[in-house]
Amino acid sequence: MKSVVLFIGPAGSGKTSLTAAFGKWLWSRMVTPAAYVNLDPGVEYLPYRPDIDIRQYVTVEEVMKKYGLGPNGALIKSIEIACKYLDDILERASKLPAPYVLVDTPGQMELFLFREFGPRFVEKFKKAGHIIGVVILDPTLMRKAQDIVSLKLLSLLTSLRLGVDVIPVINKADAVEEGEILRDDERLRLELSRESEGVIGEISERILDLLNDYRLATRVPLVSATTGKGLEELYDMLHEIFCACGDLT
Amino acid sequence: MKSVVLFIGPAGSGKTSLTAAFGKWLWSRMVTPAAYVNLDPGVEYLPYRPDIDIRQYVTVEEVMKKYGLGPNGALIKSIEIACKYLDDILERASKLPAPYVLVDTPGQMELFLFREFGPRFVEKFKKAGHIIGVVILDPTLMRKAQDIVSLKLLSLLTSLRLGVDVIPVINKADAVEEGEILRDDERLRLELSRESEGVIGEISERILDLLNDYRLATRVPLVSATTGKGLEELYDMLHEIFCACGDLT
Repeated sequence: MKSVVLFIGPAGSGKTSLTAAFGKWLWSRMVTPAAYVNLDPGVEYLPYRPDIDIRQYVTVEEVMKKYGLGPNGALIKSIEIACKYLDDILERASKLPAPYVLVDTPGQMELFLFREFGPRFVEKFKKAGHIIGVVILDPTLMRKAQDIVSLKLLSLLTSLRLGVDVIPVINKADAVEEGEILRDDERLRLELSRESEGVIGEISERILDLLNDYRLATRVPLVSATTGKGLEELYDMLHEIFCACGDLT
Repeated sequence: MKSVVLFIGPAGSGKTSLTAAFGKWLWSRMVTPAAYVNLDPGVEYLPYRPDIDIRQYVTVEEVMKKYGLGPNGALIKSIEIACKYLDDILERASKLPAPYVLVDTPGQMELFLFREFGPRFVEKFKKAGHIIGVVILDPTLMRKAQDIVSLKLLSLLTSLRLGVDVIPVINKADAVEEGEILRDDERLRLELSRESEGVIGEISERILDLLNDYRLATRVPLVSATTGKGLEELYDMLHEIFCACGDLT
C-alpha cells in the first residue's frame, strides 16, 4: 500500500510549491521515496517533474480554444474531461516505484471538492493506498482567531466530503512571525472570546470542542515551502496517521 | 438601508442563473425592486443586465493577456485588482434606486471566501445595507445524506468567514425528484445513521445538532432558476431575516 498525500487548498494558498518542497525534503532523507502527480489542468509551471501529469490528457488552455469557453467554463469542463482518465491515472500510479505519492490537486480547490472529480479520485485511489489530505491556507488569511476556526472548519469539510483524514497547515510561514499565529488551543479560545461576541463566538467555541473531541485538526503545523520550516513536523504527523492506519471511514 | 443578497456557491452551481431568475421574480411582483451587481470578472455571458459590472474595471481575459498569466493566476490577479474598486462600487450601489441589490459573486467561490475580496466587500457593503448570503449547491452533488451535511457545513463556513446570515439552497431542482433530497432533519439523521458508520456519522450528527441549536441552515429550499420553483420560499426566508434584522455579528 502506498502513502498518498493530497495537497488541497484554495487558489493561491501554495499547494504546488508545498508539494515540490515536501517532495524535495523526502528525497533528501530517503532513497526513491516520493512520486509526484499533478492534477491541475490549468497550471502553467511546475517546480517539480511530475511522474503523472493531468495535462497529458487535458489542459484548460486547449479546452478554452476547442470549446470557445471562458476561463470559468473551461476550468469546469477540463475537470469533467479529466474524470475519464482516472482509471488510467490510478493504474499508472499503482506502478510508481515509490512508497509516497504526492498529489498536487487543481488550482481551484472547489473543482476538486464540489465536483465529481475529487470524491471519485479518492474512491479509486483508496485501492492503491492510504490517503491523507493536507489542507493549506495562506497566513495572510490568518489575521484573527476566527480565521483559524475557518481553517479548521475547512479541514473538517474536506475530511467529510472526501472521507479521508486531513491535516490543516498554514503555509508561507516565512512571511509571518510564529507568535502571530494562534496555534495553541487555549490562546485561540481566549482571543476568540475577546474578538467575537455573541453567536459567532459561541458557535466557534463549539466547533473547536467538536474537533478536539475527535482529535481532528487539533495540531496546525506552520510550514514554509521556501525555507523548509515545519516540513519535518508535517512528515511526523503524516507518518503517525499512516502508521496508525486511522481511516475515518 | 438596502437588502443585499449575495449569491455564493462553487463553480457550476448556478449562481448567475439563480441571480437572474430571482431578480426576474422580484420584478414580476413589485415595482423597481431589484438591482443587479456582477462581481465575476471571468463571466462570458450574463442573462440579466447588471447595474454595476466588475468587468467595467477588470476582466480575466485582459489580465491573462496583459500579465501573460494562465487561467489560475489570472483569476487570482483579477480579484486582487477588483479590490481596488470596492469603494467606487459601494458608492454606486448606494445610489441604485432599488431596495433589493442582488450580487452575483465570482465564478470560483474560493476567490470570494478565501482571498481579501469577499470579506472586504461585505465589510464595506454593511454600510449600505443588511447582507444575507445564499449558498448554492447543485443537486447532482446531493446523492447522500452526507452531502447535505457538507452543504450545511459550507453554509456555516461562509457565515463565519463573511460574518453574515446565510441560507443554503439546492439549485436546479427541476433536475431531481423532490423526494430524493433529504431536507427533513429526521429523515436526514435516519439516513445518515444507515449510511455512515463510526466517526464520520457521529461528527455529522453533532454538526446537525450545533446548526439546529442556533437555527442555522435548518431549512434548505429547493429552487429552480429554470422553472421558478422555490423562489417564493426563498423570498419569504430572506424577508424574514431582513425584517428581524438578525445580524450574526
